[in-house]
Amino acid sequence: MKNSSNIPVIAIHGGAGTISAATTSAAQAQAYHDALQNIMRAAQAALLKGASALDATCLAVELLEECPLFNAGHGAVFTHDETHELDAAVMDGATLAAGAIAGVCHIRRPVRAARAVLEDGAHVLLAGAGAEAFARERGLEMVGPFFFSTEARRQQLYRVRDTGRVVTDHEGAAMTPPLDEDKKFGTVGAVALDMHGHLAAATSTGGMTNKRVGRIGDTPLIGAGTYADDRTAAVSCTGSGEMFIRVAAAYDICARMAYGGATLEDAARAVVHQSLPAIGGTGGLIAIDRHGNLSLAFNSEGMYRGHARGDEAPVTAIFA
Amino acid sequence: MKNSSNIPVIAIHGGAGTISAATTSAAQAQAYHDALQNIMRAAQAALLKGASALDATCLAVELLEECPLFNAGHGAVFTHDETHELDAAVMDGATLAAGAIAGVCHIRRPVRAARAVLEDGAHVLLAGAGAEAFARERGLEMVGPFFFSTEARRQQLYRVRDTGRVVTDHEGAAMTPPLDEDKKFGTVGAVALDMHGHLAAATSTGGMTNKRVGRIGDTPLIGAGTYADDRTAAVSCTGSGEMFIRVAAAYDICARMAYGGATLEDAARAVVHQSLPAIGGTGGLIAIDRHGNLSLAFNSEGMYRGHARGDEAPVTAIFA
Repeated sequence: MKNSSNIPVIAIHGGAGTISAATTSAAQAQAYHDALQNIMRAAQAALLKGASALDATCLAVELLEECPLFNAGHGAVFTHDETHELDAAVMDGATLAAGAIAGVCHIRRPVRAARAVLEDGAHVLLAGAGAEAFARERGLEMVGPFFFSTEARRQQLYRVRDTGRVVTDHEGAAMTPPLDEDKKFGTVGAVALDMHGHLAAATSTGGMTNKRVGRIGDTPLIGAGTYADDRTAAVSCTGSGEMFIRVAAAYDICARMAYGGATLEDAARAVVHQSLPAIGGTGGLIAIDRHGNLSLAFNSEGMYRGHARGDEAPVTAIFA
Repeated sequence: MKNSSNIPVIAIHGGAGTISAATTSAAQAQAYHDALQNIMRAAQAALLKGASALDATCLAVELLEECPLFNAGHGAVFTHDETHELDAAVMDGATLAAGAIAGVCHIRRPVRAARAVLEDGAHVLLAGAGAEAFARERGLEMVGPFFFSTEARRQQLYRVRDTGRVVTDHEGAAMTPPLDEDKKFGTVGAVALDMHGHLAAATSTGGMTNKRVGRIGDTPLIGAGTYADDRTAAVSCTGSGEMFIRVAAAYDICARMAYGGATLEDAARAVVHQSLPAIGGTGGLIAIDRHGNLSLAFNSEGMYRGHARGDEAPVTAIFA
């Protein structure tokens, strides 16, 4: 179970979807690369100082939440009713302990609330006002619901709401070009293997633009969008959440490894390029196994992502 | 994929937990057997007339919800705040389509709302007020929040709340005898194989007595408390929900069969007697595979259950 090399490994994602190289300006791409690099370096430094995978993934996701470029925390998309509903989850591969919150709009850093649920231990998933009351009791920072709002996201809602569609990240082919900008934002997440040999995964999201109020996607569902087990792998997903739920995407990778003897790469490819497309699912995931192998697989045009092994310079990428 | 014998099979459960044969009176046991028999016969008759597994499982769960003996719908337990929060899910093994609702208190038949989410197809899981708005739009019967209340459940809350504990179904050994009565109620569910060879699973619950408001257990989480895939099995769980979430209990049975070549019985036993106890999880599940094999496995003292093959008289049971 030990990380034989003692070399920590981390990967993060900032969402997958229709990201066209043709319509992304060099300046836009650079802004994403810079953000991903900064966040990678912070999490990497923590791991190199001996931080647990659980701490490192929570740190990375917290920084992704605070960055308005990504659809989680500040910068989250709007629901149909022009509100925000944030979801987050975290899982510790060492103990299978997990915590998640869904449908909250007053918790500044949703992943911290998920972590608090994990640490409390009584429940795994808290939703809505109950989740917010829990976060308040725990002394987490609470904010007004418009803390998360950015003008870009509001304009995105207005454009999409006029079409009457719920915009996932990934409805590419059927969409006209003006909406492309509105589809490329998904979820943020991180997976890590620490120098003690433990795995963890954390995921956070603002959901889908124009989604129905009350919709919970795969992000806060353990086994769907987030899973970690020291015996196999840590996984964080991004994409058309409903399809990830229906195939238990994150857990399925661990199951293919545990019962079928698949490698991480084979397992990730089977889910991303077979199980999900079979039911119309698009998106991607990041995963690390207990040996430090990495998979960053997606069936969409792009996925904001970064990864690093040990003290090597982080690699960040957007397109295939 | 076809049910080679064309003989439909159905199983239902009414919760697992600390049910002591010593403290259950003959009259109490008879009331449960009668209720289970009546519900089994109705679902069995539908299947024999050619109903789909999806229709038969929804029918069985709807009848279980309406029966005050079981913790779902009318007769649901109370949260700490003396409210009800109902969850339900349904999954169609033929298409992997799924629908679920969580944290509702105005929908008379929660499983019908889950079915409506499945049929709508846009989302898989809706929670709280958003789920209720959806049900209202769909014309489902809405009721006041106290429709679900029974005096027995209210007294149960008062007894438990005084102890400051959240009562799952299964904290047996550590509890003093007067609380035993309060632990035996869990979740209701049904799994079926129809004469067309399709599998389905449905589950519904009132949650845990004295639980924190906003807590979502395994029942409405596809892969945790409910899963169905024509290629492997249909599964409905009942027990300490948090542990079922952490091991992706329902999906894990299908994965052990698909990737490890396990039989249904071996897969169910591994989950109920190994994976769950390893993290302190107690409870049980009912499962049917595509050949019509059945498993009704539990690691608690009892599980209210019934099963029937073809037109054979239903078998109902409470204890091991």
